[in-house]
Amino acid sequence: MKKVGVAILGLGVVGGGTYQILTQHREFYAKTQNVDIAVEAVLERNRDRAFSLGVPEEIIASNIYEVISNPAVDIVVEVIGGVGVAREFVLDALNAGKSVVTSNKELICKYWHELERAAKRNNAGLFFEASCVGGVPIIRTLLDGLQANHITSMMGIVNGTTNYILTKMMSGGGSYEEILKETQKLGYAEADPTADVEGFDASYKLSILASLAFHTKVPLSKVYREGITKIAPEDIIAAKELGYVIKLLAIGKQTEQGIEVRVHPTYIKADHPLASVNDSFNAVYITGDAVEDVMLYGRGAGALPTGSAIVSDVIYAATHKEVKYATFKNTAEADKGTKFVTNFRSAYYIRMSVTDKAGMLAKITGIFSKYGISIGEVIQKRRAEGDTVPLIFVTHDTQELSVRRAVEKLKECDDITKVDSVIRVVS
Amino acid sequence: MKKVGVAILGLGVVGGGTYQILTQHREFYAKTQNVDIAVEAVLERNRDRAFSLGVPEEIIASNIYEVISNPAVDIVVEVIGGVGVAREFVLDALNAGKSVVTSNKELICKYWHELERAAKRNNAGLFFEASCVGGVPIIRTLLDGLQANHITSMMGIVNGTTNYILTKMMSGGGSYEEILKETQKLGYAEADPTADVEGFDASYKLSILASLAFHTKVPLSKVYREGITKIAPEDIIAAKELGYVIKLLAIGKQTEQGIEVRVHPTYIKADHPLASVNDSFNAVYITGDAVEDVMLYGRGAGALPTGSAIVSDVIYAATHKEVKYATFKNTAEADKGTKFVTNFRSAYYIRMSVTDKAGMLAKITGIFSKYGISIGEVIQKRRAEGDTVPLIFVTHDTQELSVRRAVEKLKECDDITKVDSVIRVVS
Repeated sequence: MKKVGVAILGLGVVGGGTYQILTQHREFYAKTQNVDIAVEAVLERNRDRAFSLGVPEEIIASNIYEVISNPAVDIVVEVIGGVGVAREFVLDALNAGKSVVTSNKELICKYWHELERAAKRNNAGLFFEASCVGGVPIIRTLLDGLQANHITSMMGIVNGTTNYILTKMMSGGGSYEEILKETQKLGYAEADPTADVEGFDASYKLSILASLAFHTKVPLSKVYREGITKIAPEDIIAAKELGYVIKLLAIGKQTEQGIEVRVHPTYIKADHPLASVNDSFNAVYITGDAVEDVMLYGRGAGALPTGSAIVSDVIYAATHKEVKYATFKNTAEADKGTKFVTNFRSAYYIRMSVTDKAGMLAKITGIFSKYGISIGEVIQKRRAEGDTVPLIFVTHDTQELSVRRAVEKLKECDDITKVDSVIRVVS
Repeated sequence: MKKVGVAILGLGVVGGGTYQILTQHREFYAKTQNVDIAVEAVLERNRDRAFSLGVPEEIIASNIYEVISNPAVDIVVEVIGGVGVAREFVLDALNAGKSVVTSNKELICKYWHELERAAKRNNAGLFFEASCVGGVPIIRTLLDGLQANHITSMMGIVNGTTNYILTKMMSGGGSYEEILKETQKLGYAEADPTADVEGFDASYKLSILASLAFHTKVPLSKVYREGITKIAPEDIIAAKELGYVIKLLAIGKQTEQGIEVRVHPTYIKADHPLASVNDSFNAVYITGDAVEDVMLYGRGAGALPTGSAIVSDVIYAATHKEVKYATFKNTAEADKGTKFVTNFRSAYYIRMSVTDKAGMLAKITGIFSKYGISIGEVIQKRRAEGDTVPLIFVTHDTQELSVRRAVEKLKECDDITKVDSVIRVVS
């Protein structure tokens, strides 16, 4: 039976899960995959952490060179995170001819071409299933399951923290600030939640997934990004009234005009399959020209679910020697010609506070009309809050720039106290 | 660029879709997959059908020998269906060293070991993604995406016709018979709907999927099967009242006691992700020891979705030469030792008609209790229908055999007019 040696760089949450899965399933993989996968080295400064996981002392390496010079190591798993030493170590491993498996979305999304070149130069594999949507095999699906399709659209709930917060907000658990605090107490949100709540994490993942779906590198800089921090209780109430759920969606589309990629809070119809993806669950909804609609749903994070994706890559690398999986076929050079669309089409939910006087509706719809925006729904209610009333519009599909211009114009009106919210809508 | 020749056996719905996808995407695959895939032969008696699809006359073969002796043909796609000529042709192709891609669930499930042996003997590939759940890459996911896991459970809505009928029944569209007729008119159900409504189609798929998930051949004969024809409007009403949806589920479980596989109508909680899989959509919900819960959702049938799965296999076979994918690692010999569980655990919904007199509830619960069955919910209502009343019980988890015995006992009671329905419950 073929023997394959693995090194794990970093024994944090995911590294620990990976170590546990690999050691506990060794016999199982020998039986079902016909390969004997042994952990031959770990790199972890905190030796107590290593011992607590049951790592034998003799396989704890002191530095990266000990790992990459170890002939028993065939595959290096990087689960350190970030783009500092992680990048150096991954390049070291690739340059030593080791295949690399990583969960590091930031690294892949920011240094894709560099890593890919290093992998190809050294005939090493580069696998990163665990970088997107935890245990859900979304990357394998794009590369090996839906590859017969022109993918025209993908919409994903790819961040568990924000989905947890939004689910609580939708079920009446409180304001954004209150639920964020509670989520932090539960350990589901970081002390500094910026990467999650401002959509950075989702942007990294979208950059990777869109690159694979659309067969060209989609740089992070092309991803429009907007977080969930400005969603008000009024937007939650209106969503329910209008039959929507609010989700932070990562949306990628490919049309004849080019590729559009954006992460933002979205109103999505309550009967859409993504609308019932709740709590910390993730899902990606993909549309292809042959397969039509497909959705993958599962745990987007966690030691064992993410470990499942890492070990899946390890087994894949061990049993599909021929496949290096580095990625799409384009070169950095060819990718330079890719077109991106920023003035995308969408429907919009627009909430504003206006002076309670005659003719306001006509005035506002007049402005929308001037920018070619057609209105699908309006909610106007009298409220006992001084002399302003809330007005809510849901537009038909229109252009992003038209809406931005119309909103600028609305803000200039004396009788419009405030344009409180602009949220994109998927119907 | 590598050139790969494909032959298509049968130009029915799926064969036509496959031909269309392959010819229309040829350039796209050359660009994205670095392989030039050409349809080199088709085998179809109805030449007019072939011409209507735009098939050039010179590639229409007269017989299977013309196809398998054609050196330009590397991969043979079988979409004839059934286990007659399809089996012969697939064996002919494998014996000629051609890799085979098939959508034929009945063939794979009934002749797996024979086909696998032929494939191995001739170093040919055998791929059958399209045999289960149409365009959804469920087989690739089990083999290459979740292979790090002990799969403990899978529950699937794997038949579109029955899911369409049950969705209509749940939304008040009429009785089973009425909706079946309507479904037949729409062309979503066959004139003879037996294969679908009696659960045969789902059993074939479960046999295949459970074999892959549990790493041993699960013969069709081990699959418990029950169709949807006996579901009464009263069961639909009760489901709604109790917060359930009725689905025809294909369930596979692996425990220390062995493997259990069963296809039957199921009450499933309305907030379970499978409950909102409606109309002709399919989905499979998988639980693994590392990944936790994963669900794949999509089109289970149709020319292009199923064609997407076939072409995915064609590309996979063309670009992963090393991987033959024949299947699991066990031999027919080793599979003989596999244990199966028939006395499985489940909760149950039991509806009966009883004489409207004092003490009935005590009598019935006494019988349940005698067989160790504990009751979770009871619905008893007075109705103006002579002197019988309906009584509905939902049990806690118990044993299949206990319920069968208790039901036999209940049927013997003079005051129980009828045990109308016994439906298994997933909570």
